[in-house]
Amino acid sequence: MTAEMLPHRDVTPILDRARELTDPALRHAVSGLAPQMRRVAGYHLGWLDANGEEQSSSHGKGIRYTLALLGTEAVGAPVTTGIPGGVAVELIHNFSLLHDDLMDGDKERHHRATAWTIFGSSAAILGGVALLTLAEEVLLDLGTEAGAAAAALLTKSTARLVTGQTDDLEFETRASVPLDECIRMAGNKTAALISASAAIGAVLAGAPAHTVTALSEFGEHLGLAFQLVDDLLGIWGTPELTGKPVLADLRAGKKTLPVSAALHAGGPAADELATLLAETNDEHDRFAREAELIEAAGGRQWTIAEAERQLTLAGQQLAGAGLADTPRARQATDELSAVADFVVRRQL
Amino acid sequence: MTAEMLPHRDVTPILDRARELTDPALRHAVSGLAPQMRRVAGYHLGWLDANGEEQSSSHGKGIRYTLALLGTEAVGAPVTTGIPGGVAVELIHNFSLLHDDLMDGDKERHHRATAWTIFGSSAAILGGVALLTLAEEVLLDLGTEAGAAAAALLTKSTARLVTGQTDDLEFETRASVPLDECIRMAGNKTAALISASAAIGAVLAGAPAHTVTALSEFGEHLGLAFQLVDDLLGIWGTPELTGKPVLADLRAGKKTLPVSAALHAGGPAADELATLLAETNDEHDRFAREAELIEAAGGRQWTIAEAERQLTLAGQQLAGAGLADTPRARQATDELSAVADFVVRRQL
Repeated sequence: MTAEMLPHRDVTPILDRARELTDPALRHAVSGLAPQMRRVAGYHLGWLDANGEEQSSSHGKGIRYTLALLGTEAVGAPVTTGIPGGVAVELIHNFSLLHDDLMDGDKERHHRATAWTIFGSSAAILGGVALLTLAEEVLLDLGTEAGAAAAALLTKSTARLVTGQTDDLEFETRASVPLDECIRMAGNKTAALISASAAIGAVLAGAPAHTVTALSEFGEHLGLAFQLVDDLLGIWGTPELTGKPVLADLRAGKKTLPVSAALHAGGPAADELATLLAETNDEHDRFAREAELIEAAGGRQWTIAEAERQLTLAGQQLAGAGLADTPRARQATDELSAVADFVVRRQL
Repeated sequence: MTAEMLPHRDVTPILDRARELTDPALRHAVSGLAPQMRRVAGYHLGWLDANGEEQSSSHGKGIRYTLALLGTEAVGAPVTTGIPGGVAVELIHNFSLLHDDLMDGDKERHHRATAWTIFGSSAAILGGVALLTLAEEVLLDLGTEAGAAAAALLTKSTARLVTGQTDDLEFETRASVPLDECIRMAGNKTAALISASAAIGAVLAGAPAHTVTALSEFGEHLGLAFQLVDDLLGIWGTPELTGKPVLADLRAGKKTLPVSAALHAGGPAADELATLLAETNDEHDRFAREAELIEAAGGRQWTIAEAERQLTLAGQQLAGAGLADTPRARQATDELSAVADFVVRRQL
């Protein structure tokens, strides 16, 4: 699968519109934090520089709030109904990034110093928790049954996210991890929040349960596809584009899906890979050779194929979701598809 | 004020009953966590040893869930209505302990090694967040309007707790902090959750707004009194009883209320104290001298008097709360008073 194989819809206008709709509400929510937390969050979100001065820098693509807003419109509700959902999922996403950067010891994200390197570990821990708590507040402050249901959905996805991050770190200490455990870990770490993002607008709009479930499943498959691609980029991605050092995931000993699939496939390349993974030296050549072996054992090809398969499954869920039949709802559904394609096809 | 001045009601049966009522529900909630998190939480809560083996060890007095259950009964509701509230506040309390121990670098709590020293920083961060998320789940899973209102109350108190902890750490880096800022910090760090504990049962029981507010204010004053006493014990407490090293708060450079009150009072002792606080050596004599100067400047006496004053204000809120007039409700109200007295009078 390459970007050339399929006509590629430019999703920039879709993402830009979602950002313009979400940004004021997100800034409003963050402005309610205590000054210290506002500064850590504002820096992390790219609104402030390290000295607390305003700056304009885009930060991330906003996939999660885009899904939240499009999901709202796809069930026939006005986009404003979904904005608190978009804000909440974006806050949870950024809570997890703040904590992950610290726990992984990552010093850069999007070519900027990570928050913990500037404000310290405690500020990153507290800032993350402040964003998590704020996400719940944004939904619960609606004071509606739908708001409470959305908070419940978000809380469950946050619990899965924490479980996934726990497994991710624990797997680093293991020589190999069964493929199904790695897939479950990816589902928790990444797909849970993307699933909640896709479904939260429908929950806020009071859509029927089967529609919420289908959007949730759409997001679950999309999230898995997203993580599969992320794992590919973590090994074979261009550092200039990913913002991560070359071979970063292999250096960290992450049991990502291509690694696990390669080991699972067996054969001489897998055996040599297993031997190399057990070593403790830090030489570039070792990690470069690991990448070759993962590919030789079929781990790269499996991951690409699995990402495609998950994207197809996501599309099937969307088609059967019973979404609304107004012009804007149909358009939003098409846009959900386009965003899903974009998320998975970036750099494949 | 000394323990001898007033007849002291033995609150052990009250605390024991609350523990017996809360413990099964708390264990049930924690059992739903992923295995790794369950182990960190189980260790932290004193249920498991460092190897994950079951052990029986009491952990903390359970003040917060006791307040939650008594608050429920004081408004005339059955105690079972309040149990999810008790579980939730206890989970939030333990989330904050897990994170605080890590951020403060404390290696022992209740004469046991703290969780981060055994499981590592990341496990403590993730374990804390898992408990925070679980607290929200326990309330939102009730699926009721009252459950959502209780979750909203708890979320607001958690946000204040995080703000208070942020200020607490930031104050350590400042030479002196105005007394009113220290009081606000203590209100956020400690009183917010005790206030939520006192009010959450009434919220779950659907009690009228003025009753919820009065119980909340009762808890706010009680929480401030609690922190004032805690600050006294952090300087003059017996390590065997507090489980903290002697003069621990002074060693950490904490701007606790006795310190701030002493500096605020002015005079020669306050001046000498300010000079000593600015030093960076780690000698025991320096911290012992600081404790003397805090006392000489009136910081100890002010703190004792302020704790008494806050306890009185708490009692006034309880008296005017419009609580229920059944025999059990009146008894529960008396028990709330007794627990409040106990919390403030321990070791004074």
